[in-house]
Amino acid sequence: MSERAGPVVLKLGGSVITRKDQPETVDESKLDAVAATIGEAAVDSLVIVHGGGSFGHPAAAQAGVSLASGTHDTTAISEIHAAMGRLNEAVLDALHEAGVPAVPVRPFSAGYRDESGAVVQPTGAIETMLGEGFVPVLHGDVFTTVDAGATIVSGDELVVSLAASLAAQSVGLCTTVPGVLDEDEDVIPEIERFDAVEGVLSGSDATDVTGGMAGKVRALLDLDTPAQIFDPDGLAAFLGSGAPGTRIDGSSQ
Amino acid sequence: MSERAGPVVLKLGGSVITRKDQPETVDESKLDAVAATIGEAAVDSLVIVHGGGSFGHPAAAQAGVSLASGTHDTTAISEIHAAMGRLNEAVLDALHEAGVPAVPVRPFSAGYRDESGAVVQPTGAIETMLGEGFVPVLHGDVFTTVDAGATIVSGDELVVSLAASLAAQSVGLCTTVPGVLDEDEDVIPEIERFDAVEGVLSGSDATDVTGGMAGKVRALLDLDTPAQIFDPDGLAAFLGSGAPGTRIDGSSQ
Repeated sequence: MSERAGPVVLKLGGSVITRKDQPETVDESKLDAVAATIGEAAVDSLVIVHGGGSFGHPAAAQAGVSLASGTHDTTAISEIHAAMGRLNEAVLDALHEAGVPAVPVRPFSAGYRDESGAVVQPTGAIETMLGEGFVPVLHGDVFTTVDAGATIVSGDELVVSLAASLAAQSVGLCTTVPGVLDEDEDVIPEIERFDAVEGVLSGSDATDVTGGMAGKVRALLDLDTPAQIFDPDGLAAFLGSGAPGTRIDGSSQ
Repeated sequence: MSERAGPVVLKLGGSVITRKDQPETVDESKLDAVAATIGEAAVDSLVIVHGGGSFGHPAAAQAGVSLASGTHDTTAISEIHAAMGRLNEAVLDALHEAGVPAVPVRPFSAGYRDESGAVVQPTGAIETMLGEGFVPVLHGDVFTTVDAGATIVSGDELVVSLAASLAAQSVGLCTTVPGVLDEDEDVIPEIERFDAVEGVLSGSDATDVTGGMAGKVRALLDLDTPAQIFDPDGLAAFLGSGAPGTRIDGSSQ
């Protein structure tokens, strides 16, 4: 158990809660199952971040916007943001059904990238929500970016930013795979250094513009908080302070 | 002309852009006309805040939420926020049609009320948007409130907060009336002290839970920036640095 006093930060992958092959389609049964698990766990202090799946990615790709490439087209910016808002509302509905006191937080409204490209995500509203017993639910979004208009901020980037600024007690990434897999498709139980897994992870980033597994591992290794990567079958264990899937802990390095 | 270098802050009253007698109904012709005027004015640096009209007020009243009375019902909070989001999207659409580079800013995502009830609205994202040439469009919203769950933040409160924190060069409130009216329904050209108009304004707050004309005048008198209250016919003059309707200037007191 960590001694840090901050909230649990949980990422729900876009592929976990949407059907990636159908535009703007929620995977209702998976989303409801994940929401029910969160409701049963009743974690004291929890922040949720979800990805875009089939909501955000098509609109972003059409506008040519990515983590590194921005746009000043405010119609496109508003459309991407609205698409992510529709997914956010679906996630909130499912969480409310499961008894989770979830409230929406739209990253574009509060955060931005500075001159260096770093994510700045003020947490005053989020900390006040946590103080009121609410569960803030953020999402990957468009993000105003100095000298570039608006780029995309990924859910993974937000998780890393929030874990640091909120002094998270634990970080969990719920993905479609049960952890970081080795050459034999077995889950690697613990990663403490990137170079130890670099060979296994190379090439895994090809299909996801917001950063695949290598990007996740790299960013999580930089955190002071240990993180777990797991699939929905591991979610109950994670919320119960267990260690499902792969543990990423770069803090001892 | 003011020598302050900040943006123009413009409030669009909820009654100006919606049909208050029909639930969730935009007044398309009025909204389009206002948007066209903003587009033609092409102000260098502009922040827009709109009210709720027939979108926010019914949902808030149903949940028993007001500026002073909060709720911990996260379903109600999400519903009020989503209703205001639908109006915000309609306003953005109209502004985009008129060539205004408008982007959405949801106050609930960034701001909150502190222990004293004061509005805290961080402006990092808004300032970055202005730097990129965007026109941030905020709205009255639910607002997380220390020890009270979530209350309502009015568009007027946001205008006052933003005018101060952004060092606005001017503040304009576009309402359904051409200014603050005296006993004969004539526009009062200038107000420098509240007690000079107190008799005329008493009783005008009865019908609007988010603060009627007396509340607007009181709050605007506290600003360092002079403000104008006018109706849509005065909007072009205001954006052209004119002084339509009533000028509220408490800065000399």
